[in-house]
Amino acid sequence: MKDCLFCAIVAGDIPATIVYETPDVTAFRDVNPQAPTHVLVIPKEHYAHVPEIAEADPALVAELMRGAIAVAEIEDITESGYRLVANTGAGAGQSVFHAHVHVLGGRSLTWPPG
Amino acid sequence: MKDCLFCAIVAGDIPATIVYETPDVTAFRDVNPQAPTHVLVIPKEHYAHVPEIAEADPALVAELMRGAIAVAEIEDITESGYRLVANTGAGAGQSVFHAHVHVLGGRSLTWPPG
Repeated sequence: MKDCLFCAIVAGDIPATIVYETPDVTAFRDVNPQAPTHVLVIPKEHYAHVPEIAEADPALVAELMRGAIAVAEIEDITESGYRLVANTGAGAGQSVFHAHVHVLGGRSLTWPPG
Repeated sequence: MKDCLFCAIVAGDIPATIVYETPDVTAFRDVNPQAPTHVLVIPKEHYAHVPEIAEADPALVAELMRGAIAVAEIEDITESGYRLVANTGAGAGQSVFHAHVHVLGGRSLTWPPG
């Protein structure tokens, strides 16, 4: 989608540190990392947020989750644990309106989650 | 599963405030709410954590997400925004080892997410 930062990353027009990729999903490091591992898993196709994918393409939601699992393995945080976070709407802290799942790990994660 | 708190809630052996239910998924209020809306969406079948579902039953992951959407509608936080959180492993803050997605909303959610 025009003027979408993450679509531009998918297209290769804006650089990102890709850590995992499949035909439908890509994962790259957050530019403002909040933990030693902070990776965003996104669908290559544009959706506004994760719930929109659940309605439109249920299999893609599971593919995003499998992407998160793969990222955890690559980053070696499967054993130590990790948190998946998806913000829906500006009021929840969503700042890029292309669906993404945050994968955070490598440190203790506190509660509440924001 | 024996000795699983959430399996006991699904079985009706432990009370919970159910806000949404389908044949495969149930959603109930967190007993230690961290926001005006703090609901847990869980599969009725026992899985240790959300990534395990992604491997075993991809359609169920999407069903959990659709449950989260339904909860947001019921709680009237779709417009104001909401955060979905899934902890995998004790190090990430997972305290009940039956897969669950936290739905948080009704207040400003800060960053980092824990």
